[in-house]
Amino acid sequence: MKPESVKKYRPYPTLPFPQRTWPDKRIETAPTWCSVDLRDGNQALIQPMSLAKKLEMWELLLDIGFREIEVGFPSASQVEFEFARTLIDDGLIPPGTAIQVLTQAREHLIKRTFESIRGARDVIVHLYNSTSTLQRDVVFNMSRKEIIDLAVRGAELVQQEAKNYPETRFRYQYSPESFTGTELDFAVEICEAVMAVWQADEQNRIIINLPATVELATPNIFADQIEWFCAHMKQRDAAIISVHTHNDRGCAVAATELALMAGAERVEGTLFGNGERTGNVDIVTLALNMFTHGVDPQLDLHDINRLIDVYERVNRIPVHLRHPYAGELVYTAFSGSHQDAINKGMSRYETASAAFWEVPYLPIDPSDVGRTYESIIRINSQSGKGGVAYIMDHDFGIKMPKEMHPEFGRIVQEMTDREGRELHAREINHAFEETYLDLHHPFDLISFQVMKRHSDKKEKRSFAEVEATLEVDGREQSIKGTGNGPLDAFSNALKVLVTGEWSLCSYHEHALNTGSHAKAVAYIQVERSDGKRFWGAGIDTDIIIASVKALLSGLNRAANGQKATVALG
Amino acid sequence: MKPESVKKYRPYPTLPFPQRTWPDKRIETAPTWCSVDLRDGNQALIQPMSLAKKLEMWELLLDIGFREIEVGFPSASQVEFEFARTLIDDGLIPPGTAIQVLTQAREHLIKRTFESIRGARDVIVHLYNSTSTLQRDVVFNMSRKEIIDLAVRGAELVQQEAKNYPETRFRYQYSPESFTGTELDFAVEICEAVMAVWQADEQNRIIINLPATVELATPNIFADQIEWFCAHMKQRDAAIISVHTHNDRGCAVAATELALMAGAERVEGTLFGNGERTGNVDIVTLALNMFTHGVDPQLDLHDINRLIDVYERVNRIPVHLRHPYAGELVYTAFSGSHQDAINKGMSRYETASAAFWEVPYLPIDPSDVGRTYESIIRINSQSGKGGVAYIMDHDFGIKMPKEMHPEFGRIVQEMTDREGRELHAREINHAFEETYLDLHHPFDLISFQVMKRHSDKKEKRSFAEVEATLEVDGREQSIKGTGNGPLDAFSNALKVLVTGEWSLCSYHEHALNTGSHAKAVAYIQVERSDGKRFWGAGIDTDIIIASVKALLSGLNRAANGQKATVALG
Repeated sequence: MKPESVKKYRPYPTLPFPQRTWPDKRIETAPTWCSVDLRDGNQALIQPMSLAKKLEMWELLLDIGFREIEVGFPSASQVEFEFARTLIDDGLIPPGTAIQVLTQAREHLIKRTFESIRGARDVIVHLYNSTSTLQRDVVFNMSRKEIIDLAVRGAELVQQEAKNYPETRFRYQYSPESFTGTELDFAVEICEAVMAVWQADEQNRIIINLPATVELATPNIFADQIEWFCAHMKQRDAAIISVHTHNDRGCAVAATELALMAGAERVEGTLFGNGERTGNVDIVTLALNMFTHGVDPQLDLHDINRLIDVYERVNRIPVHLRHPYAGELVYTAFSGSHQDAINKGMSRYETASAAFWEVPYLPIDPSDVGRTYESIIRINSQSGKGGVAYIMDHDFGIKMPKEMHPEFGRIVQEMTDREGRELHAREINHAFEETYLDLHHPFDLISFQVMKRHSDKKEKRSFAEVEATLEVDGREQSIKGTGNGPLDAFSNALKVLVTGEWSLCSYHEHALNTGSHAKAVAYIQVERSDGKRFWGAGIDTDIIIASVKALLSGLNRAANGQKATVALG
Repeated sequence: MKPESVKKYRPYPTLPFPQRTWPDKRIETAPTWCSVDLRDGNQALIQPMSLAKKLEMWELLLDIGFREIEVGFPSASQVEFEFARTLIDDGLIPPGTAIQVLTQAREHLIKRTFESIRGARDVIVHLYNSTSTLQRDVVFNMSRKEIIDLAVRGAELVQQEAKNYPETRFRYQYSPESFTGTELDFAVEICEAVMAVWQADEQNRIIINLPATVELATPNIFADQIEWFCAHMKQRDAAIISVHTHNDRGCAVAATELALMAGAERVEGTLFGNGERTGNVDIVTLALNMFTHGVDPQLDLHDINRLIDVYERVNRIPVHLRHPYAGELVYTAFSGSHQDAINKGMSRYETASAAFWEVPYLPIDPSDVGRTYESIIRINSQSGKGGVAYIMDHDFGIKMPKEMHPEFGRIVQEMTDREGRELHAREINHAFEETYLDLHHPFDLISFQVMKRHSDKKEKRSFAEVEATLEVDGREQSIKGTGNGPLDAFSNALKVLVTGEWSLCSYHEHALNTGSHAKAVAYIQVERSDGKRFWGAGIDTDIIIASVKALLSGLNRAANGQKATVALG
């Protein structure tokens, strides 16, 4: 920005309110939710929803559990009028669900609005007019009194018109639009004037909806305003305090949460924060924030992928890949230390049957919203051995010994550094195969047989004699050996073939899968005479052969030097 | 979610802190900004940046005005090591800019980190280890004391190593990672232990960076934690309190803002909130939030489109179309009443030379970030006459009289309802042409001439005589008439041709552009004998001809009936 342009702006005017109590509160129950996807959300689309798409969104909102749904501004557009009629005429509104219709405080709009809802069981008539200092001045050129008269006249018209629809149970809602740009005392005054018309009392509570039509300040200010408003209205018990926030400063979720702590009881918002400009508050995030603190949000979000699917199709707006709880990347950890910690946390959660979900870097169990663990770890140049080990274990059943993690981790990291991109799980598996399993030089196993084998109880030792044929540097050679078991015998037999000293330092083996065709995977570490150590691995249905292959794999790697790079398949 | 799954979660533990003062504070100056785009941002990319892309991001960050930039985790990846070396070896770090390097508290990583920055002028060495209750238990299996020892040993190693690089001015930073999962008293204890090693005092202030590595609670809690921390540390003046927030609950901007009110002086974040999972706090939003409150953010964001362009190309992550200040749709109002209010607010701001930017629904002047007014209003079925009038004025110079707005607004709305999508400005202009300018039936003007014309000063009246040839229903007819001016004369001459009574009720005309080839546009409203009124419009270089055309346009429309639909071109 040009340096002087900052002078065009000034701080948001605030009211000192040291009596505030909200910072000591927490959210303990879910608010009443009202979806405005079909109104505020729809009106902000480049391509507004067709009737078919509106019906698809309507279905989704019902399934999620919304019981108050703003279906449009029927007097402002023929499409919205027809949608309201379709819902009613086709009997698509289940008992217990109220449709909400928005109208300005003007006679012909109010009449048209009522026509749109004829025959509905439960209707919230939502009346609004702009009350902000700026709009009174610039747009309407009206005094405070004139603006109140406008609202009162609208409220009276609503009440009169409702008498013509005796089959409908009406509730009333009033919004002083641009509440955050309105003097607080005036907001209280105009809301009380409307409540008086509607004869609000504890039995007939009026929804007073306080919109941050434009987000103009830090979210604590909005909370102050809500608490101030509640504290200064005469008939707090005769109102349901509702909030409707927008995200111009990126704080709509925070503003709504703090407003709930400050006394709000009802929230208007949309799925994933669709709505005018930067959008409305995202109800999915709000609900899952509560959920992860043990508060039942009273909304069913167990299949977040379905929500995303319908949302993106109907609105033609993507859910960003970093969107809380929903984005493609939010259950992904690329950093090695994060991967390692998640790995350990997940293991503990699974094995210890922990009472509470506590996994580092994952504030929610992905499976609670229908996501899988698979997507948790992805491998790029920032990843460490922990992530690589997790992928090999989780995706391919290869549970490498912990001491083997650094070696293979380094190999994968060199690949990602070289490729400069994320690796797919199959590429990591391919690297494992190339590194450990597909080595046939200098030693390639042709045949292997255990000739004798017994354990002598008295001597407390076992004995085995083995014979094997190997191709060594292209030439077949047969070897024989004895030892305290087949692997030891093979290892001894090998000594005639292998130049240089070496020793076997570590051995692990596990079943790779279950059933009669189960294979085993063996991991063997050998130490060369220069002290360098190399891991080898082998897979076979025969656990002995698997270990023989693993030993040859280690020796081949030792003979070739540590293979520095692996070609990508 | 399954109903019982909420039991896996519990409220975030908090500390009562009624002494808090932050809710009465506001942000009055910009913090020190530190970009972590090249580290936290880069590490969370599906495809991490190449060296070339890193250099492009580096350039952008310098241009924006960052003077502290975390360039990576050089000991963890060869690519990051080489990037640090390139910056130094190629002399790409301007004086006054410090590079920051992240390292874990382990000897070989610390040594490698120092190798990466050899020869740099200004370096912030950023040491971290995980301190959270959960990670101490699950990941490290270490006691509080062991974790402190780890940090202290790391700090000592950093200090020793620094002695080997006398050409560099070092500053030190310590992060108790997962601060929001760490007991507050322990966080203070470990930070003080590290500060003691580094001999922190008012002359040698240590950056204590308190990360919400995972966002775990509402943002007011984070502010409480920051204020509590500041209030309980022994040497507040020896520390620069820095925050580093993530967006898991969608509240990173709010948490950072409240933390600044609570005493933080430095902010780590990224452009548009890139970073692990849901991302880091978005510094662009933070800075522009300050800017719109009259606080100079000390960052140059005047060309936000360049930021978006580089960001999207380098990170391969889109900026969402509802992203505050930057998204494609955030300077757009689809709703009619919003459009109308913006229209009025913009006019007032431009004509009244107002001291402060105050336009309804637009918290920032789009031109301050290099966006144009063009994108402010888009037209769909939710739009009203105000938006249509704005487009015609702004994009085509057609300043329709206010009384004409409802007629043309209705025509456009029918189009959008029918099409079920947004209309482009050119389509709206096309509709204007079809509706008003391209009408030749029943009356088409062939020629027009003013024969006599004089104004009589004494009689205080003007006089004109006109002749015209029209094609009427396919047949040429010449007419003559007199009146108090050419239009009046033409209007009188026409009466012989037009069946039925009509009168001219309104007339407006304005220049369409400037210069010798300037055209004028005239608008005329006629009233038919049945009381119905129709607008007409005409364009010509001759202002008389323009008005004659406008009159014929109105009469043609009256004769054809109000044209209900306009075909889209």
